[in-house]
Amino acid sequence: IDAEDGSALLSIAETVHYADLASLYEELEDDERDFFFKTIGPELATDVVAELPFSLIEDSLSHFKPAQLRFLLGNLSDDDRVDIFQVVSKEAQVRFFSLLGPRDKELTKSLLKYEEDTAGGRMTTQVGRITPDMTVKQALAILRRDREDTETLARIFVVDEQGRLEGKVRLRDLAFNTWDTPIRDIMEDADEYILATEDQEDAARLLSRYDLVVLPVVDEFHHLLGVITYDDALEIMQEESTEDIEKLAGIAGDQTELSYLNTTSVMHYRRRVMWLVGLAFVSIASGYVMFRFGGVLQKAYVLSLFLPMVVASGGNAGGQAATMVIRALALGEIGAGTAIRIAWKEARIGIFLGITLGLSIAAFISFILPQFHPPAPESFSFYKLALAVACAITLQVVSATVLGAMLPITARAIKLDPAVVSAPSLASIVDVSGMLIYFGTAAAILSL
Amino acid sequence: IDAEDGSALLSIAETVHYADLASLYEELEDDERDFFFKTIGPELATDVVAELPFSLIEDSLSHFKPAQLRFLLGNLSDDDRVDIFQVVSKEAQVRFFSLLGPRDKELTKSLLKYEEDTAGGRMTTQVGRITPDMTVKQALAILRRDREDTETLARIFVVDEQGRLEGKVRLRDLAFNTWDTPIRDIMEDADEYILATEDQEDAARLLSRYDLVVLPVVDEFHHLLGVITYDDALEIMQEESTEDIEKLAGIAGDQTELSYLNTTSVMHYRRRVMWLVGLAFVSIASGYVMFRFGGVLQKAYVLSLFLPMVVASGGNAGGQAATMVIRALALGEIGAGTAIRIAWKEARIGIFLGITLGLSIAAFISFILPQFHPPAPESFSFYKLALAVACAITLQVVSATVLGAMLPITARAIKLDPAVVSAPSLASIVDVSGMLIYFGTAAAILSL
Repeated sequence: IDAEDGSALLSIAETVHYADLASLYEELEDDERDFFFKTIGPELATDVVAELPFSLIEDSLSHFKPAQLRFLLGNLSDDDRVDIFQVVSKEAQVRFFSLLGPRDKELTKSLLKYEEDTAGGRMTTQVGRITPDMTVKQALAILRRDREDTETLARIFVVDEQGRLEGKVRLRDLAFNTWDTPIRDIMEDADEYILATEDQEDAARLLSRYDLVVLPVVDEFHHLLGVITYDDALEIMQEESTEDIEKLAGIAGDQTELSYLNTTSVMHYRRRVMWLVGLAFVSIASGYVMFRFGGVLQKAYVLSLFLPMVVASGGNAGGQAATMVIRALALGEIGAGTAIRIAWKEARIGIFLGITLGLSIAAFISFILPQFHPPAPESFSFYKLALAVACAITLQVVSATVLGAMLPITARAIKLDPAVVSAPSLASIVDVSGMLIYFGTAAAILSL
Repeated sequence: IDAEDGSALLSIAETVHYADLASLYEELEDDERDFFFKTIGPELATDVVAELPFSLIEDSLSHFKPAQLRFLLGNLSDDDRVDIFQVVSKEAQVRFFSLLGPRDKELTKSLLKYEEDTAGGRMTTQVGRITPDMTVKQALAILRRDREDTETLARIFVVDEQGRLEGKVRLRDLAFNTWDTPIRDIMEDADEYILATEDQEDAARLLSRYDLVVLPVVDEFHHLLGVITYDDALEIMQEESTEDIEKLAGIAGDQTELSYLNTTSVMHYRRRVMWLVGLAFVSIASGYVMFRFGGVLQKAYVLSLFLPMVVASGGNAGGQAATMVIRALALGEIGAGTAIRIAWKEARIGIFLGITLGLSIAAFISFILPQFHPPAPESFSFYKLALAVACAITLQVVSATVLGAMLPITARAIKLDPAVVSAPSLASIVDVSGMLIYFGTAAAILSL
């Protein structure tokens, strides 16, 4: 590309998969991109554009002349075209729309009704449709006629005259039956389907749970609108996992869809700064507790040895519990009605964990710490110190575990995304409770 | 089921998807499970067993008599059968193996060669195979004969006489071409394939990147061994995401494959306790730093107000950076050779973040804090305090960000899973550096 060697690029482009061409495109400079599209031609460019991250699409389309753009937009599969309309600016939307043929215009309009993250927003309408009265021969003839416009023939759906979903057949059932077999005799029930207005995540979950290649999407009258395919499911699940992981780490906002290195530092900065500054100010609450209890700390400064431990253990235990619950919610393993069972389960786990930790620390303070000859506390023995620290850490771990499990469930119950309970925000909260518990317990047990 | 109403159960079982039956089975008591399998019969039970979490499989098979077990094992698809052999105890392996037919014995043995998490361990051998010299008619005849044993016909693979992969055709190409068309004329290249010994994650990534329904698995001589299908990819990606999320939260060990509520508290406890206790002891290092610098704190106890903030901001910023890098590594977005680019990028992001945070805190200390009339520090002004805290937090955020990004890359470079760098373990490390930075900076700037 650097050498602007068109024929070499063209021959490479023809042997390489368009997904790889899209990655290559991401790496190019602006003028190289111009040359790149000119060389590969609008046919191949269609596939490449469909694979680009959304944030690059509008810019990429500016490299084309109107006639080329008209061809490219017409050549796109309907779901990819709608995706593009959903991500470009308003002006581009109007301009692109005027380039579409009348049939595509209508189709695009009807698909744009659905939100981007619903089943309807994700589906393709390019699916094989036959009716139950056809014979195998007729069905094959129909499918052959439409095959250029059909994204998948893995399942062919059977609809009645009103277009309502009646059943499905596999292409193999057509290929392996005699030509005069009526479709009605070989079709199976289409038990799994999804409403167009439902969440795309639910669609992905159905595809995965029932090992489907294709999931039909219907409207409230059971009309077949389109299908969501296995590759959509893969993409949806990857996006959702990344989103959950990032939220758990306190990273805000939508994914850019650009790869890590192609995202600018400023973008990375923007997604992280909000939580970071917000949580820093929350931490002043812990600082305030520490400041207020300065008297306790000054009377027995040896307590500072275990302050970070008690505080951090709460954050760790709470983060573990929150992560387990958030993942289980995301995978649909637990519903909203199980809050009490989960609270009780986490309480038991927290008690086990807290006691283990308390006993380990108590043993450490009683037997190992004195070996290092620290300045002996004046007013109490190492055993009493051990008791105070162990009680504090047990209390802190139990409360943080239950809190960590309950917060995501509460968030879900009030219709928030459970993953807003990020591990760092949870840690900031239990830091405060940890300080209070530690100084409170120490003051009481050591009578400070 | 409670009423042991066999015919009612049977009629439900026949209308419900076997994935739902498997979830139902998980909820049952032991004697109910016996009744459940007796009622649905070995045919349907095969599908249910294949959907069960691995940890329940051995127990579930103990509900069958040898004759039923022989039928069930023979009825399983070959990849599911191998999975079962991989998870049951040694004795069960021997017993089950003796029940297999001679062909299945050989097949199972050859598949057991591959590790569970490689492409070979995950593939099914039940794939349509034809040769390039056949006509469409001959190919359809072959496929029809084998169809009961074929898991997918979405792609049919073309092999030469030695069984080496030559190309692929789609069933639609067979169905829509005249019967005397030679396969050679309609087959496409099979450019995407994977070696049986490679990681199953790589297989899933290929399937997802190239939107494949089926990925052929070959040996080092390019012989077609089997295929991995899109539903395997979905499962693999879900497992890997869950694993990464759990590791990031400091949860150890393999997933149980049981859902959250079906995992016993003891199991949950075991997976969390190790990190929790380990990290608690690491935190004593922070405590030790705090203990040693007690003098600084006692001279200006107002410093305690911002100690938790400086320390926690490092953990948060480091956790964000580590999460971004770990996810990018998992999605294959960044390779090992880009370490320096990433370090530089994170250093810039860290500097932006650190300066933002430093300025916000400095403003808070200079202008807002005095409004609360705290006991004024004797030996220095609020502005000097602001300078000290701002410098400390900037240093802490920059160093934690770079460390958070570099540790996963280092782990990958020395062939460890990047996700071992969990957010809590990172936080424990930067807690120590945070204490050192804070007390060091404060002592220097405030001359304590």
